[in-house]
Amino acid sequence: MGNEELGKVNFWIWYGGIGWQSKNMAFLVQKYGGTSVANLERIQKVAERVAESRRKGNRLVVVVSAMSGVTDGLLKMARGLHAEPSEREMDLLMATGEQTTTALLAIALQARGIAAVAMTGAQAGIVTDGTHMKARIANVSPKAVQAHLRLGRVVIVAGFQGQTMEGQVTTLGRGGSDLTAIALAAVLKAKRCEIYTDVDGVYTADPRTEPGARKIAEISYDEMLELASTGAKVMQARSVEFAKKFGVVFEVRSSFNRARGTMVKEEAKSMERVVVRGVSLEKSQAKVTLVGVADRPGVAAKLFTGIAKAGINVDMIVQNISLPMGGRQGKAQTDITFTLPREELAKVRKFLEPFVRSGGARQILFKEGVAKLSVVGIGMRSHTGVAAQLFRALAAARVNIQMISTSEIKITVVVDEEAGSKAVRAAHREFRLGKRV
Amino acid sequence: MGNEELGKVNFWIWYGGIGWQSKNMAFLVQKYGGTSVANLERIQKVAERVAESRRKGNRLVVVVSAMSGVTDGLLKMARGLHAEPSEREMDLLMATGEQTTTALLAIALQARGIAAVAMTGAQAGIVTDGTHMKARIANVSPKAVQAHLRLGRVVIVAGFQGQTMEGQVTTLGRGGSDLTAIALAAVLKAKRCEIYTDVDGVYTADPRTEPGARKIAEISYDEMLELASTGAKVMQARSVEFAKKFGVVFEVRSSFNRARGTMVKEEAKSMERVVVRGVSLEKSQAKVTLVGVADRPGVAAKLFTGIAKAGINVDMIVQNISLPMGGRQGKAQTDITFTLPREELAKVRKFLEPFVRSGGARQILFKEGVAKLSVVGIGMRSHTGVAAQLFRALAAARVNIQMISTSEIKITVVVDEEAGSKAVRAAHREFRLGKRV
Repeated sequence: MGNEELGKVNFWIWYGGIGWQSKNMAFLVQKYGGTSVANLERIQKVAERVAESRRKGNRLVVVVSAMSGVTDGLLKMARGLHAEPSEREMDLLMATGEQTTTALLAIALQARGIAAVAMTGAQAGIVTDGTHMKARIANVSPKAVQAHLRLGRVVIVAGFQGQTMEGQVTTLGRGGSDLTAIALAAVLKAKRCEIYTDVDGVYTADPRTEPGARKIAEISYDEMLELASTGAKVMQARSVEFAKKFGVVFEVRSSFNRARGTMVKEEAKSMERVVVRGVSLEKSQAKVTLVGVADRPGVAAKLFTGIAKAGINVDMIVQNISLPMGGRQGKAQTDITFTLPREELAKVRKFLEPFVRSGGARQILFKEGVAKLSVVGIGMRSHTGVAAQLFRALAAARVNIQMISTSEIKITVVVDEEAGSKAVRAAHREFRLGKRV
Repeated sequence: MGNEELGKVNFWIWYGGIGWQSKNMAFLVQKYGGTSVANLERIQKVAERVAESRRKGNRLVVVVSAMSGVTDGLLKMARGLHAEPSEREMDLLMATGEQTTTALLAIALQARGIAAVAMTGAQAGIVTDGTHMKARIANVSPKAVQAHLRLGRVVIVAGFQGQTMEGQVTTLGRGGSDLTAIALAAVLKAKRCEIYTDVDGVYTADPRTEPGARKIAEISYDEMLELASTGAKVMQARSVEFAKKFGVVFEVRSSFNRARGTMVKEEAKSMERVVVRGVSLEKSQAKVTLVGVADRPGVAAKLFTGIAKAGINVDMIVQNISLPMGGRQGKAQTDITFTLPREELAKVRKFLEPFVRSGGARQILFKEGVAKLSVVGIGMRSHTGVAAQLFRALAAARVNIQMISTSEIKITVVVDEEAGSKAVRAAHREFRLGKRV
């Protein structure tokens, strides 16, 4: 998880005397995702936007992803040569995508008379560990970026990539460009980080499911984290954790229009007035139940260690209380249920069948076609009865609850996938999340 | 010219104990040009070839160019954004081309069970000066490459690129990948450098002009240099000069077949037996004559300094002896003629017309549609009468000679472009360069 990454980050000394942050101008880090720079025309639009912000006097570091489709194209070429291409060479290959966009955007800015300079992740001082294809940022050495900023240049940085201390090119894995932007914003003490993407911001629910969904103006890091881990795929939890740790205020917004997006920041008193911030639905889940697992210390640990080693991501885990012995063979037994993405089912089946045969459990039940509904809000901490209110609303909508799991600021229930949309609408209505009319 | 580059090269200390060069195996540097790695299928063929050489026990460093068309595509994108994109960003952009091929070839080798590792120019220790888009190699630090070689890996290096001491990505300009290969061969003390291209080797004449042209088995650096500068566009003179300076024996050969190519090496006694090694023809030339130039010291210097500053490459320069005063205005005058590529004519005209108006010369004459024919051979040094023999052969073929220029191992004449092919065939026959039947 992200904690390890955060723990290791050891930023270089911050060089004082940053005259360029004074006066009225703001210092911003912007990040543009793959769809925002998909072709030359889109790059021109991004350049126009950056140029505008620069002309207003802002100092800017701009992080870019590869043009959408480029990374997939490179991946396809590599797979055409080798079913499992080496990760070190994949990183060298993939890194060309962002490097290309970086150079092109700098050139497009120069054409507008804006002094701009392109940098690879390595040149921008993004130092990572050596875990190819999912490297963690070890530290950020911002000297080169600062030198360009002092000369009044817009600095364009290739997202998603870094370099080890030994000079190996690495990539940061999913959500890596967001992470580059937030790490640079942290180290450079930017006033704000703007994450430009193809959605308008974070909504109270997926607008395709609930047409009445409303864009959230402000959300706390913790709420964003819970939403990120429950199907609202705006950002990876990793980047949000990083932003939280270093207090980077960021805004998720669209590069396709001028509307304000969603500000993500430390929670404020005012945020607590809203009990539920949003509702998310994660579809295409499956549910696995192990029936008759010996209720002894260490059994669950052994089971889930094995599953993790097999590379399977399980999510909700629920263990019912141990049944009294009854007719069973005189030993305490329990049932364990967990959820996982449907596409992982074959892998988990392959792992669990030997486990059952060797006496680890009496029986396994698999169920596809389930979905996880989550309601999230820091206001829950100080409001009781939110879970009961959700259950009542779902019951009234005739949605059956199969599993329940709660955390301090989140309640998750598993329902039939078919009933998922209905459940989202019921919860959205119940907590009055819709547009204010 | 290359001299400056050579003078500056200051190779790092060569680490001894290269056990991998002992025994029967050879240590080779191979270079594959853009057409040799044009697509995945071609990359597979190159991988097969490299794998074969590796399985024979050879240790290998392989330098690759960008897939043909990729560099032009990147250039086109950049020009779509800016008429004159900045050179620093162009280098960052262009360098992605070779980086991509490098990773793909390494992956293709791994798929064949060959341990291979891909490196950028910077990672391979190619350090250059800061002249973007035509950087000169300042030194080569081969430690990282050597470390991989010691572990038995085939090292794939991105050609055409390097890095300044400050970490800026640079490209080496035309013929840059050849230069990377030859520089690595020099520093690593390779037994041989193989330059794979889309031609079979160096021929006694262009086979499209002279069907009887024969592939040259061995040629000296000096002959290769003269041919490189006279239209036989197999390699840039720069790489040949580098190879000569460091005694790198290289072979120019085709990646599309298995035929031996042409070995380029220091001249041997046996080479002198052949008086003329080859004939080259450079078409699309133009001829400019300045009539009535004041015959005073410094006039030609001033003239050609101005032309060079205007970025115009002139080639042959011939100055006739000064005419006796005669009817002219009592001052010694001379005529100066020089050749240049036809496409430079507009530029030179723009420069010379003011020169004439300001009294620098009485008149200018321009003539397009000329070609330069050169015969080259180190044997000329010890054989007299070669020029006379060439002139007789051309006269017999009814080819009129317009200008003559000779060096120690080359004779160049300017002829009508229309008569060029006929002249090549006449010279080729005269010096018995054809296939031995």
